[in-house]
Amino acid sequence: MNFDTHALLKTKFVDLDEPAPVLPEIQSILPHLSKRRPLKLIEGVTSRRKELKVGVLFSGGQASGGHNVIAGLFDSLHQLAEQVTLYGFLGGPIGLILGNYKILTRELLDGYRDQGGFDLLGSGRDKVETEEQIAQSKRVVQKLGLDGLVIIGGDDSNTNAAFLGEEFEAEGIPCSVIGVPKTIDGDLKNAFVETSFGFDTATKTYSATIGNIARDALSAGKYYFFIKLMGRAASHIVLECALKTHPTLAFISEEVEAEQWKLSDLIDQLVNLIEQRSAAGKNYGVILIPEGIVEFIPEMKQLILELNRSLSDAQEELTPESQQLFESLPLSFQKQIKLERDPHGNVQVSKIESDRLLLEMCKKELKVRSFKGKFSAQPLFLGYEGRSARPSPFDATYTYALGLLAGKCIASEKNGYMVGLRNLNQPAVQWIPVVAPLASLMVLEERKGKMKAVIQKALVDLHGAQFKKFQSLREGWQRGDHFLYPDPIQFT
Amino acid sequence: MNFDTHALLKTKFVDLDEPAPVLPEIQSILPHLSKRRPLKLIEGVTSRRKELKVGVLFSGGQASGGHNVIAGLFDSLHQLAEQVTLYGFLGGPIGLILGNYKILTRELLDGYRDQGGFDLLGSGRDKVETEEQIAQSKRVVQKLGLDGLVIIGGDDSNTNAAFLGEEFEAEGIPCSVIGVPKTIDGDLKNAFVETSFGFDTATKTYSATIGNIARDALSAGKYYFFIKLMGRAASHIVLECALKTHPTLAFISEEVEAEQWKLSDLIDQLVNLIEQRSAAGKNYGVILIPEGIVEFIPEMKQLILELNRSLSDAQEELTPESQQLFESLPLSFQKQIKLERDPHGNVQVSKIESDRLLLEMCKKELKVRSFKGKFSAQPLFLGYEGRSARPSPFDATYTYALGLLAGKCIASEKNGYMVGLRNLNQPAVQWIPVVAPLASLMVLEERKGKMKAVIQKALVDLHGAQFKKFQSLREGWQRGDHFLYPDPIQFT
Repeated sequence: MNFDTHALLKTKFVDLDEPAPVLPEIQSILPHLSKRRPLKLIEGVTSRRKELKVGVLFSGGQASGGHNVIAGLFDSLHQLAEQVTLYGFLGGPIGLILGNYKILTRELLDGYRDQGGFDLLGSGRDKVETEEQIAQSKRVVQKLGLDGLVIIGGDDSNTNAAFLGEEFEAEGIPCSVIGVPKTIDGDLKNAFVETSFGFDTATKTYSATIGNIARDALSAGKYYFFIKLMGRAASHIVLECALKTHPTLAFISEEVEAEQWKLSDLIDQLVNLIEQRSAAGKNYGVILIPEGIVEFIPEMKQLILELNRSLSDAQEELTPESQQLFESLPLSFQKQIKLERDPHGNVQVSKIESDRLLLEMCKKELKVRSFKGKFSAQPLFLGYEGRSARPSPFDATYTYALGLLAGKCIASEKNGYMVGLRNLNQPAVQWIPVVAPLASLMVLEERKGKMKAVIQKALVDLHGAQFKKFQSLREGWQRGDHFLYPDPIQFT
Repeated sequence: MNFDTHALLKTKFVDLDEPAPVLPEIQSILPHLSKRRPLKLIEGVTSRRKELKVGVLFSGGQASGGHNVIAGLFDSLHQLAEQVTLYGFLGGPIGLILGNYKILTRELLDGYRDQGGFDLLGSGRDKVETEEQIAQSKRVVQKLGLDGLVIIGGDDSNTNAAFLGEEFEAEGIPCSVIGVPKTIDGDLKNAFVETSFGFDTATKTYSATIGNIARDALSAGKYYFFIKLMGRAASHIVLECALKTHPTLAFISEEVEAEQWKLSDLIDQLVNLIEQRSAAGKNYGVILIPEGIVEFIPEMKQLILELNRSLSDAQEELTPESQQLFESLPLSFQKQIKLERDPHGNVQVSKIESDRLLLEMCKKELKVRSFKGKFSAQPLFLGYEGRSARPSPFDATYTYALGLLAGKCIASEKNGYMVGLRNLNQPAVQWIPVVAPLASLMVLEERKGKMKAVIQKALVDLHGAQFKKFQSLREGWQRGDHFLYPDPIQFT
């Protein structure tokens, strides 16, 4: 497929040769969607539809390129139908549930092409999950007479898309639900989707900053920068940024968990590094820390579990191991953990500033070891600036293509799919559209004690090529300085 | 002057028509340098020198373009002399004092052209100020037989340059000392120097990030970002970034001081804004805060003065006003101020994280006012990443030109000047070199209780055009959203 709108009338979807098996448990939960096979585009004749009414919404955190998905969708629909109404639901899924929307015109959209952010519609973290939420959404879809609904979101939102699609199919509602893989975290990928949009822009934005900071660290020769990178689950962002900038040290949450590292192991690694570099006259460095690292340290998980029980009415005592770990934390963190709890009384792990925690504990350990050198450190957080940046040339082109494909799916009455493209490491003209059945991407997972069908999150593969490359290089980064300084994103 | 090296042999320096008066107090301190007049370049014949030996050093914090100053200097010297030795002093002024240097070859320099950072030589905050430091520097200069010394630094470093130049002149040491105006803070400017290098790159780097964050704030609609911007003295950076991005609110330290605002006045401004926007359905915004704002609040200055006395052996009690102010601070800040003191026992104002202080106090005040809306805020700091970024096209060209000029000064045996260019808002071919006598830039100021001759710091002019523009726009920014989203720096 050639990614301009004119080709859309000269192609048609057919089943891909390669099947996409659906797990038996998923088949019983999503019986209709489970019959889908992956689709590819071949040359063919598609007749223009008389009219298409389509809804679109953003779900969850911002990712660069969202506006181009809508632009691609708009252009595609206008090519594939004589009359088009595109409804943009406002403020995320809640807009669908409440029927709050704006009509997206060419004039309005033109101001948002190639722009960052989700501000055309806004976004939100609500779900379309409960029976009530699904029923309300259905009412809005039927009231507007939508032929299609495009959900631009991450794994949870695409899970919601699957259930909506199944419901519509079961009830004979002729609305095609299409998911678009969005997340800067990079953990929404699978056999059909090579990457989620926004990851490229976010990691390039962070890497330019990390490179600048590394250059500053090297020039001044007196600071360690503890840089926390956004993302609570997978460490794809840290891994990608590490390969782009060659920091002194980078933690990968998946490795911390697999190796069963304790908090003290992390501190030992850091303090050993600081001591060794100090002996070589280097009192500076750049440390990359995944925002959610604390939740991947097995003993911390256990502590938090016990703390929740101990702070609840049950008032269970901590085990000696957890008590010891708790006491090893700096006082201000102990206090924060005990005081700041969520409405359910649970410890808010997400509020623990992992960069500052590691930094404080390094200071403490250096004192214990009677470190004679200099240690001065700055905590930093990189996050929001990478979510809403103007999309990189890759993300801008990729998202536009995803939008085109989503429109093509709807015009072809394809329901319950996630749009994707293969061959993304080649120039855009060589990208190959592959549309994956949402059901084939789902697994059963325990969530809050219950088994649920969800789109699988892709964590960092510790046996994969990227991690292996990182592993082979990182020792050299610790001893010497091998910083790279990527330029900020350049637009053509 | 055309800024390629080939023109350097076809021009010569003559006195500028416009004089540059030197204050009588400065005349008595720097009698030799005070006789200088500003210089301009005219067409003329300059014969090539047989040999030139020149030293160069970075002083103070990094600023983008430093490497290009050295590249320009190198190219200029090689044009103006048959044989050149360029000594790069290592780690800042301490390299000059101790005679630590590396010889800068074309091969070495070529890897640093157009690159960020100061890592070719490193930098440091030592001064060449005491008799001992000046004597040691003199010994090194004489031992190497330097014809010139180029000091790339801010106001303090250029003050040091003036005293060194005076000393050399008085003692008949034929070494020309030339200062190059460097600082991202933008406070080194005067009648001859329109801007210091690094300011353009730093403000563009910060503004791209601020724009991204504003777009994210607008998209998610649920966060206030309290963004602290590097710089302890002048607020040029905040003012420039505000005009480039149109944040919801920006504080200018000079205005805080001039208006005699109290800490509670700042909090009132913020909380009023939060309440008004909340009433309009806007629970988000971007607030820009100069890093050093606390030191510009008159009552805070007084409190710190009193605290230093109260915490010293004198144990003087705080006045009731200061006691009340102290008690109004969040507990963690009270503790930090009392506990973390410098080796002289003084309160470390610089350790107070102004973004977090204002944020915490807003939360407190919102509670006092029984605010019913939503307030969620993120503190952020932008600093180091703007100091060592790859120089913007402007800074890259400007610094190279400054380096060329510095070389020309040395070859022309001009001692005690700061190099500069006028007409900088025009294309580079129209820039006009103007070399200012360091003495003419100096004033007497009280520093630690003593009157000292220093290069004057240029604070934000509250009657200047830039501040007036900011003033005329800011009310609109508070009510509506007028964010601008500058692209990251583009290189050609």
